[in-house]
Amino acid sequence: MDWLDQIAWTGDGLVPVIAQEAGSNDVLMFAWMNREALRLTAELGRAVYFSRSRNRLWHKGEESGHVQQVHEIRLDCDQDVVLLKVTQLGHEPGIACHTGRHSCFYSVLKNGEWQPIDPVLKDPGQIYR
Amino acid sequence: MDWLDQIAWTGDGLVPVIAQEAGSNDVLMFAWMNREALRLTAELGRAVYFSRSRNRLWHKGEESGHVQQVHEIRLDCDQDVVLLKVTQLGHEPGIACHTGRHSCFYSVLKNGEWQPIDPVLKDPGQIYR
Repeated sequence: MDWLDQIAWTGDGLVPVIAQEAGSNDVLMFAWMNREALRLTAELGRAVYFSRSRNRLWHKGEESGHVQQVHEIRLDCDQDVVLLKVTQLGHEPGIACHTGRHSCFYSVLKNGEWQPIDPVLKDPGQIYR
Repeated sequence: MDWLDQIAWTGDGLVPVIAQEAGSNDVLMFAWMNREALRLTAELGRAVYFSRSRNRLWHKGEESGHVQQVHEIRLDCDQDVVLLKVTQLGHEPGIACHTGRHSCFYSVLKNGEWQPIDPVLKDPGQIYR
């Protein structure tokens, strides 16, 4: 049986994906893949997601240049979540978030408020021109 | 505005949650929360999820004793994914997975197959009695 058939895809044919930075183990982002995106990710060694808002494949970094080199693809015990170990290319330190931050998870709950605590590493206006 | 109102809940009133181990930064598991689960998680400092299969709140560790102490609650740039920093209690090293493994992400794609590569730390028959 094909390894792609072993995934418990959602009714929409998607699987949630966590991208984790190799080395630091920082969680960089969360996105979705369809079958084609995951197949391409494995084949190219570069993260390819499925954009639900744009309803199409999204080669991570296609606009920003912030490509994710994929070292490892993991699957969870229920076969319904994928974990990627990646190197975030295109900037040092890596920028995974469209806000120009290292990680999308830059806000922390403090005193009953979400507070953005991680710095913007590059102006998004300079990333998406 | 309430911090819970700032979350972009799914149509089903849920939000995906990644649990990451404080210190190692290992990704332990992925689950879902509804509003009540997230409120309780923040209040108790212990992870409370919403079990979609059982359609009820699931106090992590209620059967296994493998409770998750929550140090930090983060939200992503789209306000639709939560990241917890936790200490996995009840066993040393921590067991987050119902299979008795440290993490739910114990299978890796190798030569076109999902191969379980992380060890079982405790027999699940001994965990769920």
